Parts: sequence; structure tokens; C-alpha cells
Amino acid sequence: MTTAITFLTDYGLDDEFVGVCHGVIAKLAPAVRVIDLGHGFRGVRAASAALAQSVAYCPPAVHLAVVDPGVGTARRGVIVVSASGAPLVGPDNGLLVPAAEALGGIREVFELAEPAFRLEPLSSTFHGRDVFAPAAAHLAVGASPVSFGPAASVPSLVRLTPPHVEASDGRLCSDVLRSDRFGNLQLAATTQDLAEARLPEVVTLTARGATHAARLAETFALVEEGALLVYGDSAGHVGVAVNLGSADRVLGSPERVWITRLD
Amino acid sequence: MTTAITFLTDYGLDDEFVGVCHGVIAKLAPAVRVIDLGHGFRGVRAASAALAQSVAYCPPAVHLAVVDPGVGTARRGVIVVSASGAPLVGPDNGLLVPAAEALGGIREVFELAEPAFRLEPLSSTFHGRDVFAPAAAHLAVGASPVSFGPAASVPSLVRLTPPHVEASDGRLCSDVLRSDRFGNLQLAATTQDLAEARLPEVVTLTARGATHAARLAETFALVEEGALLVYGDSAGHVGVAVNLGSADRVLGSPERVWITRLD
Amino acid sequence: MTTAITFLTDYGLDDEFVGVCHGVIAKLAPAVRVIDLGHGFRGVRAASAALAQSVAYCPPAVHLAVVDPGVGTARRGVIVVSASGAPLVGPDNGLLVPAAEALGGIREVFELAEPAFRLEPLSSTFHGRDVFAPAAAHLAVGASPVSFGPAASVPSLVRLTPPHVEASDGRLCSDVLRSDRFGNLQLAATTQDLAEARLPEVVTLTARGATHAARLAETFALVEEGALLVYGDSAGHVGVAVNLGSADRVLGSPERVWITRLD
Repeated sequence: MTTAITFLTDYGLDDEFVGVCHGVIAKLAPAVRVIDLGHGFRGVRAASAALAQSVAYCPPAVHLAVVDPGVGTARRGVIVVSASGAPLVGPDNGLLVPAAEALGGIREVFELAEPAFRLEPLSSTFHGRDVFAPAAAHLAVGASPVSFGPAASVPSLVRLTPPHVEASDGRLCSDVLRSDRFGNLQLAATTQDLAEARLPEVVTLTARGATHAARLAETFALVEEGALLVYGDSAGHVGVAVNLGSADRVLGSPERVWITRLD
Repeated sequence: MTTAITFLTDYGLDDEFVGVCHGVIAKLAPAVRVIDLGHGFRGVRAASAALAQSVAYCPPAVHLAVVDPGVGTARRGVIVVSASGAPLVGPDNGLLVPAAEALGGIREVFELAEPAFRLEPLSSTFHGRDVFAPAAAHLAVGASPVSFGPAASVPSLVRLTPPHVEASDGRLCSDVLRSDRFGNLQLAATTQDLAEARLPEVVTLTARGATHAARLAETFALVEEGALLVYGDSAGHVGVAVNLGSADRVLGSPERVWITRLD
Repeated sequence: MTTAITFLTDYGLDDEFVGVCHGVIAKLAPAVRVIDLGHGFRGVRAASAALAQSVAYCPPAVHLAVVDPGVGTARRGVIVVSASGAPLVGPDNGLLVPAAEALGGIREVFELAEPAFRLEPLSSTFHGRDVFAPAAAHLAVGASPVSFGPAASVPSLVRLTPPHVEASDGRLCSDVLRSDRFGNLQLAATTQDLAEARLPEVVTLTARGATHAARLAETFALVEEGALLVYGDSAGHVGVAVNLGSADRVLGSPERVWITRLD
């Protein structure tokens, strides 16, 4: 059975970078379906959260992800084989680890070292085209992860600093994972954390030193236009939104928020 | 024969929302081709116009469209079966009706009520993933619209307020349907309305209280760089553009324009 | 063997224009894979460079490209058959020529004149839908280029003005071809030109009358955050970037830069 390839980057779709990777894959694996999971992510942390929250909704696939500020330096390229058997391909900078954990954990890791699976000459700035897309294509048509290079230990993988989340009675403090195109914020806190904080329907939300009134609600349209709401989002995290507006803009793109009982 | 799925949203392509819906479809309907009709529409009215103007150019397909500010409220999800047989899937907020009319009219309507065709647990904010994409995929591989839920009456469908258009000798007044990425405005008025107004080549265009000189011309490059033109657009509507510029910016994103004979 | 179609425009992905072309292709050539090479290019020069730098990475394909400010005027639509046999389809405004040269040169040129290969009624503003996408689809399923219209001479093709590049000992002057979404500038100068200029590691970069310190480096992360670097990019051109920043913004979107030995 031919598997699919999912593909996530920060390349954007204005330029040809994503398209060239599609070309490389189509050349090596013409029958493989590529599912674009988004190409506008800002930063490794946001992209890794998106990937981790997407893989369960995809068919069996090689997961190709490239957000790679260290391209061309000594950072490794890796294949992370998840417990589900699905391999993840990308730079060793923490990007792939949360998705591998969402797929049941990490079974094995291999370095992308074998020149036969790369495009030559290897560029210093576009490993998506020269290293990662070819590796994903070769994996999708049956190459074994062991053939790409030496095994690496799981603890040797680079991991992102875990975000700060603290829930106590009447108070939830959480780092912001990311903001989406609508300006909805996704917190690192989960709906479980929210339940633990035992907050009432009307709360105070503090961000960047300013306090705002907000309401716990199931969905956007249940609060007035322009009002702040706190909700359980579609990935099981806590979301902060403004109905028909942008929480990111209203709150000033905060890195951390506090949600507390009104005093 | 396997049908295609066309897919239109306001999700944007920066985040993973569109990609996750592609994943859901690929899982349920692996052989079905998905044709993305655009994911950056602003508002139900603009998106409904785009969908209505696109369907005739597509192969036989299930048309999946999600612009859904009322997600998670009591608004219904529906399958609108057009006279052509092609089903349209999305929220019951007026989005699907103009496209169904472009496909010959509405034959039947069914509510999306059957839990077996949804993803569980159902989120409150991402029915594209949990309700609409699965429904489109099931339809594309042969599920019958009747199996998704109770029939609804055609008059019960939510419809958009019809835009204002008024053509008389020497005068055309029209609401603006939408602006595209180049800043070209598409009016609700059609080229037929334009013909009825019997306007000369040089006209006055009024928008947001300001008047501008404009020319009726067939295409952009027939007026000077920076000049306003009024033309019949590729969908049979009246367009307003600035050659190598943005009419939307020049005119201040108007909701309505008046095009009149010079006095 | 069915070939692929690559597809590049300046239509953007917010509206339905790209999607409608996909629909047109899917109707005429349902089994053909379409590889989107990017739809956000700004101007014919930038798009032609991107196309020329992409085609080598794609499987055998019909290359469809539409950046067409002269749509609806007397400018011709053409099929440019490259020495590789791959046809390129688009407006005769210089867009296709560099890519044809990257595919080994131009073998033959045909005008798109045959109404049977168009959609009717022909619009004045959307030849992507009505002329170019149908032509590409018909070519991909086996129509011969000669059947589309009269042969045209190679010298009759419109060509872009060649960009200015001048390399001498200690000095490289070059036009800027384009800026990507990260704000990295691609110069018309190649890495060969850079080698001829025999520049040291620390250089002076002049743009828009201002001078800046810059470093020759292999990749972004080898200079400090916010520092300017000059490098050989993934297409063999000279790139100018700011590590974790935007060279385009820092340098004020220059049209030409001078890179010189420090005095």
C-alpha cells in the first residue's frame, strides 16, 4: 500500500518553495498523495503544536515538516519513527517531537546522512527541497528508515522548553502557544487545566499588564460582538477569542495570560 | 464513478485548518480529488458569490463550503441538493443558496444530524473538520443525502438579503459584492444592468460621497496606469478596477457605488 | 503516459481564481496531477525567475504560468515548446522565456488561436480560466502544440530587459530579481559573479544610498541575529538576507545593490 505524505512548513505559498518540494516528491513518488497541512506557521513552537494536533486526523502517512531557522548549520536532519509506525521527517529542533508523542511516542530515530537520498548539489539554505522532501518521498515508496543513516538515541533529540501552565482554585496561568489567522489564541493549558481552575462564567483576563472582562462560553457567537471569551478549543486546549474580532490584537500578542475569578 | 469535492472556506492557509479537513477527507475517501476553490474569503456574502461563480467550471462534485461565524450555535448544518444532482454541504446561513441556484435550483435539503457521519467528540468551533468535511467525503463515496438526517423545506433555508441594484437611463446604482486580491470590486449589478443604464464611455463614479472620473473599457490595460475603469467582469458582473492599482483602496472600500452619465 | 501540469500565477489563494483554473483542468484532464508552484508572485520578472528556477525539480510536465497585466489586449497567448519537449503555456510577455531556456532552449512557438481549445464566451480579464488552463489541460492529455494555432518565430517572442550585473575585483553590482516572504533578496548576480568579485568575508553593502556592514556566509544562522549576510542561494544566485529578519525591509526594497570590499 502506498502511503500519503503530509507537509507542513513556514515557507508560505507566495513563492515557489512549497511547489518545488511538491515537484521533487512528484518526481520520486508520482503516485503518492500529498496533504498540505499549512505553510504559514510562525516559529517552531507554533508549528510543532499544529502538527501534533493534526496527525490524528490524517490517513497513514509520512509526516514531512520543515520550520528550520538553523538550516545549513550543524543541526541534524532526522527521521523520527513513532510508535504508530508513521515516520516524521524534518530538522532536529523540537518540531517533530510533540507530533511523535501524539502518535504514541517515539520508537526510533535515524539521522538523514545518506547522500543517495538527497539532491546534489546540496544547498545551504533549502534543505526542504534537497534533504527533507526527497527523504519523505523515498520513505513513502518503501525505503526503510534504517537506510537513511545512523540510529540516534531518543534522548539526543532536541526538545522545546515545555510551556508554563499553572492551574489552581480560581486561577489559571498559561503561556500562549500560538495565534491563528482570526486572532484566536491557543493556550498551552488544556480544558482539563481549565476545569481544575474551577472558574465562574465571568472572569478577569490579564495580559501584558492590562485586565479585561471575559466570559467562559462554548463558542464565539454566544458572547456579544467584540466581547472576549475563553473556551475549550477544537484541539482540547484553552482558547481565547473575540467574537467577530481578534483577541491577539485586543490583547497585544501576549506570551502569557492569567484567567482569574473576579474579586 | 467517483466524484470530486470542491472546497471553499475562510480558514486561510497559514494554519492547519484546511489541511486537517483534507486529512479527514483523505481518510474517508482516499481516491477522491479535492479542488480547493479558495480559503481567504471575507464574509458569507463574498464567499457565496465566489462559490456561485465557480461551480459551472468544475467537474461533477460535492461542493463543500464553510464560512461559519455561527459555528457551535443552533444554526443547522445542511446538504442542499441542486437540480443538477450535485450536493452542496455547509452551514445554513445563506452561503450555499446562490451556488445551488447556479446549478439549476434547489431540489431537496437535508439536515446534517446523523452522528455516524460526524467525528466524535464534536467540537464547538471546528465543524469544518467534525461535521462538514466528513459529510462531503461520505457523499463523495456514495452515501445518500437522505441518510444524513431529516429533510428540511426549501423555504426554511436561511437566505442572504438580496443586494441593491438599480439601473435606469444614465444611472447605475449597485451594492459591492466583494473585492479581490488586486482590489478589483465586483458589483452585484450584471453586464445586463450596465447595458440597461446606457452609459457613455466616460462616466462619473460616486463612492463614499466622493466623485471620480471613470471609463467604460473592456480590460485593464485599455486605460492609463492609475485610471479607474468600469468593465464587464469574467463572471458577468460589473467590475470596477484601477489599472495596475487598487480600486478598493482608491474608493475606500465602498459598500455601494453610483455610476452616472457626466452632467 | 499522462504528464503533470505545473501552475504558477499572481492570482493569490484568497479568491477562487486559482481554484477555478483547477476546476477547468480537472474537467478536461481528470487524471492529470497539478503541481502548484506558487500564486503570490509580484510582477512578471519575479515570476519568470521563480519559474525558471523551479522547472528542473519537477517531473515531465506542461508548465502553465499566468502573470498577465496585458490580459484582454492584443498581447498573444503562446505555447513555447522547450528543447526538452516540455511545453510552456502563458502570455507572450517574457514570463515563459527564462524557464524555456532553463529547459534547454526554445524549439518552437505556437500562438493560442484555436477557439476549440478555449472556453466560450471568452472573457476580457480572465484568460487563465478561458485560454491558458484549457490549453494546458488539452496539451497534458495529448493535443499537439501545432493544433493550437499558427507557428510564431522565436525572435518574435517578447523578452524581459536583461537585469544589470557587473562584477569586478572587489566590487559586485547587481539588480535585485525579487524578495521572498522572509524578506531575503535574490540578486540577478550568480555565485559565479560573486566569485569573480573576489570579496573578503566582511563587505560593505550599499542600497538606496545607504551603506551597511555585511558578511559573506554560507547560511543564515552563521551570522548574529539581525546581521546582514551575503550568500549563494539555493538557485545559484547571490542572496542578501538578515538572520531572523528581513533584508527587504532593512534595505528599503532596493532595486539594485553594490557589494564592495571595505576601504
